[in-house]
Amino acid sequence: MIQTILLKNRPVGEPKISDFEFKKEDIDLSITDGELLLETEYISVDPYLRGRMSSAKSYVPPFELDKPISSGIVAKVIATKNENYKEGDFVSGLLEWKTKQVSNGENLQKVNKDLAPLSAYLGIIGMTGLTAYLGLNEIGKPKSGETLVVSGAAGAVGSVVGQIGKILGLNVIGIAGSDEKVDMLTSEFGFDHGINYKTTENMKEAIEKAAPNGVDVYFDNVGGPISDAVLFNINQFARIIICGAISVYNKTETPMSVSVQPFLVKNSALMQGFIVSNYAKKFPEAMKQLSTWLKEDKLTYSETIVEGFDNTPQAFLDMMNGKNKGKMIVKA
Amino acid sequence: MIQTILLKNRPVGEPKISDFEFKKEDIDLSITDGELLLETEYISVDPYLRGRMSSAKSYVPPFELDKPISSGIVAKVIATKNENYKEGDFVSGLLEWKTKQVSNGENLQKVNKDLAPLSAYLGIIGMTGLTAYLGLNEIGKPKSGETLVVSGAAGAVGSVVGQIGKILGLNVIGIAGSDEKVDMLTSEFGFDHGINYKTTENMKEAIEKAAPNGVDVYFDNVGGPISDAVLFNINQFARIIICGAISVYNKTETPMSVSVQPFLVKNSALMQGFIVSNYAKKFPEAMKQLSTWLKEDKLTYSETIVEGFDNTPQAFLDMMNGKNKGKMIVKA
Repeated sequence: MIQTILLKNRPVGEPKISDFEFKKEDIDLSITDGELLLETEYISVDPYLRGRMSSAKSYVPPFELDKPISSGIVAKVIATKNENYKEGDFVSGLLEWKTKQVSNGENLQKVNKDLAPLSAYLGIIGMTGLTAYLGLNEIGKPKSGETLVVSGAAGAVGSVVGQIGKILGLNVIGIAGSDEKVDMLTSEFGFDHGINYKTTENMKEAIEKAAPNGVDVYFDNVGGPISDAVLFNINQFARIIICGAISVYNKTETPMSVSVQPFLVKNSALMQGFIVSNYAKKFPEAMKQLSTWLKEDKLTYSETIVEGFDNTPQAFLDMMNGKNKGKMIVKA
Repeated sequence: MIQTILLKNRPVGEPKISDFEFKKEDIDLSITDGELLLETEYISVDPYLRGRMSSAKSYVPPFELDKPISSGIVAKVIATKNENYKEGDFVSGLLEWKTKQVSNGENLQKVNKDLAPLSAYLGIIGMTGLTAYLGLNEIGKPKSGETLVVSGAAGAVGSVVGQIGKILGLNVIGIAGSDEKVDMLTSEFGFDHGINYKTTENMKEAIEKAAPNGVDVYFDNVGGPISDAVLFNINQFARIIICGAISVYNKTETPMSVSVQPFLVKNSALMQGFIVSNYAKKFPEAMKQLSTWLKEDKLTYSETIVEGFDNTPQAFLDMMNGKNKGKMIVKA
C-alpha cells in the first residue's frame, strides 16, 4: 500500500487543499531488470510548481489532472535490479509525490549522506544553490564593489544569492516580508541591509537610502510593486535577473506594473528570465564551488522542514504564503 | 545675425511650441586657429530629444533651460582655420540649433555629398541606420527563419530594422498607426505583414495570426499597449530590444503596463535597453555594411523633409505625433 498525491483541480487564484487529492493505492512494487524501488525521504516544494498546476504554456509542461504531482525528491533505494545502485543508496531527482515508486535509474543522481545532510541536496547544493549561483553569475555578472538587491531575500534562493553576493564583494540589500526575516538577513546571512516591505511605506526611498550609489544587479524572485520600486533605483548598465514572480503567480487577471521599458532604455539595462535547467552544462562547476564554500563555512542555509508526507500540499501552500524561512522541505 | 532655438520650458506632458524660444542674435562669428564656421544645412529631430527636455536623470544630460537645443546636424564649412577642413566641406555631428555656429572640429565627421544625399547622413547611413543595424544584431541576434516584430515600423529606425530583417532571412511583421503607413511597410520596405494598431481591436490576436510560430525578436520603439500585446506572443529565448518608448514619453504619471516579469521568466526571454552610442566601436563596420546594402539597392529609405529652420520645433512635435513617414528632417 502506497500513498500518492494527485492534482485534482487546476487552482484558480490561490491554490487550496481541495485542489489536491490523497490516494492510497495497492500497486505492484515488484521491479524488473534495470529498475529500482525507491522510498521517498525528502520532498522539495517550490514556487515554480504553481506554474505547472496551470494549463498555460510554459517552459515545463503542465501537470496533468488526476495524475501525481512531481518535484525534487531525495529517496532511498530499498530494492534494486540496477547494477549502478545498491540497497541503502540515496538518490535525488525529479520524482512523483508517492511514498514509494519504481524508477529505471535515469535522471537520478547519487547523493552522499556523509558529505552533507540529505535535505541539503534539495537546497544549498541542489537546485536552490544552483539557481542562486548561476542566475547571479550568468545573467547578473556582478563586479566587486557593485550593489546587489535581492527580493524574496529570506527565501531558499534569495538567502543564498545574498551570501554569494557578499563572497563576491558586493554591497547586498535584501527585501523580505517580516522583521524576523529581515533580522535573519543581516545577522545570519551577512547582508548589508534588510528592508521589510510590509512595514515600509515608501519602498523606492528605502532602497535609495540603502543603495546610495544605485542598484547594479537585481535578483528578482517576486515581481510586482517591490520590483517596481527597485526599477526607480537602477544604474546605467544594470542587470536584472528574473528568477520568479511569486507575487503574481496567484493572480487571475493579467497583472499590471510600472512600465519597465523607459527604465531599461534610459539606463541601457538588461532584464532576463532565468531558468536553471537551461544552464545544465554549468552544474558540475557550480556544485563544486558551492560545496567548497559550504565546507569553508562561507555559506550557511536555513530550511523549514515539515514532518509527514501527507502535509506536502499544506507545506506548498504555506511556502506560497511566505510562512517558510529558507528552503521549504517535507520529511516523508 | 544668426537665429537660435532655445529650450524655454521643460515640457509637461506633450511639448508645445511655447516650450521653445526663437532668438535672433548678433554674435561674433570670427574664428581663431583650429576653428571652423559652420552653416546648418539639415537638422535631425528625434524621439530621444523629448527625454533631454526633462530634468530626469538619463543616459545623456538634460538640455539646460534658456540654452540652445542640440541634435544631429549636417552643416557646411563656410570658413576655416582648421587644416583638416576646407571651405565647402560638409560635416555631420551633434550641433546646436543655430543657423551658424563656430566649432573646434572635434566630434565632427566629414560627409561625402557625392556618395549619398546629405540628409542620408542623418538617417540611413547615420544614427538611424546604425541604431537599426546594431540594435537588431547586437541584442536581437536574429537567426534566419525566425520571426521579427517591429513597432514604430514606418518610422525612421523601424523601416530600416524591417528591411535588415528581410535581408537576414526573417519573417518580418511591422506595426504602425495608419493604413497608408502599413501599405508602405509591405509595398516599399518588403515587410511580410503590417498591422495598423489604430484600427485593430485585438492586437494580441492580430500578432498571433501574423506570427503563427511566435515572436523570436521584438524591436520595440514604442512601449505601452502595443508592446504588451507582443509580449503575449513571445517564444522561448525571445530577445526584445528596447530602443524607445515613444508612447509613454509624454506621460506625466508613471505609466503602467502588463507585468513583463512572468513572460520573461516563463520564456527565458531577454529584454535590453539599447542606446546606439554604447556601440561606437562597431560604427565603422556597421556603416560599411549599410553603405554596401544601399549601393546594392537592398535598402531603401523614406524621409519627411520640412523646409525652414524656424519650423524645427514644429517638426519635432509632428514627429512625436507620428505625422512623419520615415526619418523626419528639417532643411535649414
